[in-house]
Amino acid sequence: MGVEEDSSEDEEDEELEEDVKAFHSGRLFTEGEKSTGGEGLYVPPLNFAMVDCGVYRSGFPDTANFGFLETLKLRSVLYLCPEPYPEANLQFLLSNGIKLFQFGLESCKEPFVNIPEDKIREALKIVLDARNHPILIHCKRGKHRTGCVVGCLRKLQKWCLSSIFDEYQRFAAAKARVSDQRFMELFDTSSLKNLPSPLTLRNVGSFESPYLAPIHQ
Amino acid sequence: MGVEEDSSEDEEDEELEEDVKAFHSGRLFTEGEKSTGGEGLYVPPLNFAMVDCGVYRSGFPDTANFGFLETLKLRSVLYLCPEPYPEANLQFLLSNGIKLFQFGLESCKEPFVNIPEDKIREALKIVLDARNHPILIHCKRGKHRTGCVVGCLRKLQKWCLSSIFDEYQRFAAAKARVSDQRFMELFDTSSLKNLPSPLTLRNVGSFESPYLAPIHQ
Repeated sequence: MGVEEDSSEDEEDEELEEDVKAFHSGRLFTEGEKSTGGEGLYVPPLNFAMVDCGVYRSGFPDTANFGFLETLKLRSVLYLCPEPYPEANLQFLLSNGIKLFQFGLESCKEPFVNIPEDKIREALKIVLDARNHPILIHCKRGKHRTGCVVGCLRKLQKWCLSSIFDEYQRFAAAKARVSDQRFMELFDTSSLKNLPSPLTLRNVGSFESPYLAPIHQ
Repeated sequence: MGVEEDSSEDEEDEELEEDVKAFHSGRLFTEGEKSTGGEGLYVPPLNFAMVDCGVYRSGFPDTANFGFLETLKLRSVLYLCPEPYPEANLQFLLSNGIKLFQFGLESCKEPFVNIPEDKIREALKIVLDARNHPILIHCKRGKHRTGCVVGCLRKLQKWCLSSIFDEYQRFAAAKARVSDQRFMELFDTSSLKNLPSPLTLRNVGSFESPYLAPIHQ
């Protein structure tokens, strides 16, 4: 089983490298243009998207993405892999005053599934705390681990399961896992519904978010 | 050619109906629960996502989605099909004080491509005007016409093309069109860069958006 997991991890590593190469192919960076890429363009991380106001998701950001990430004025990053955060990324966080929260979820390929519900629950508390916003949730490819956390968040937002799965599948595409979807379906949100910290996202809790109010003016 | 376009339109209609059926299958609504679906759950429209703060995208919303849409507190809807807006949807907009902007873009299947650049430009001006936010951009399936408008918006936000295409493909999936992507690539943003109305989205224009500021507090 250990070997299986390792090979799954290696496979993900290789896929990630290929994706990143393909993603940035044709792009030339000179020294002075690194932060925004050539021609002053921004390069969002792989699988980047906005989850809600102040909450973003993506795959692993590399140096080419730092210029874009700066524009988000992040307060924190929620990193979902057990591997140490790379030095370049740590430096980026440090120089931009961004706090790092790490919840190491193993990448395990079906049928060796072991998503620790307690860690997902702790991770969600970080996401729900407006003091951490804007926050970027990321794992390696922005598909499985990030997809599970976002799916559980949607459950808290009272999205129906078919919509949660639809969103999960949009990011996971051909790599969608029934086990991830089953995890989201069975995930118990009851302990998260009465968090003392302010809940800022729409439909979470029963009150209108003061945090969202300025947007509607 | 006319026949080809019609059959393409019919095909999209059928696909949409199938999608909507599949999407809501297994869900039972009683009269009193219609707004949020059974069990008080929300049903976002097909292909729903947040584009930026105050800007959403989706496929055609039906009555099952109205409860969810109410939570967004929309100020306007940007509808990208030439067909008249259905009565039920018009009633929903009316009773929620939501303004409708319609830019009828024909749905044309490759190689019969004719995306009118002037209409996309006018549509973008509506999206960029913060007085219309929160705004929902939608067409029939939330893939091609909506994908093109969002792609052009990303160009204004200075996203690199590979990231724009990555996002477009996430929604269009197997239906992704080279012609749409070529349109986005060739779309000239220069006339939109100095709009007199406030530009509210990150990286559009050169100033910090006052509209986004409260989020970072």
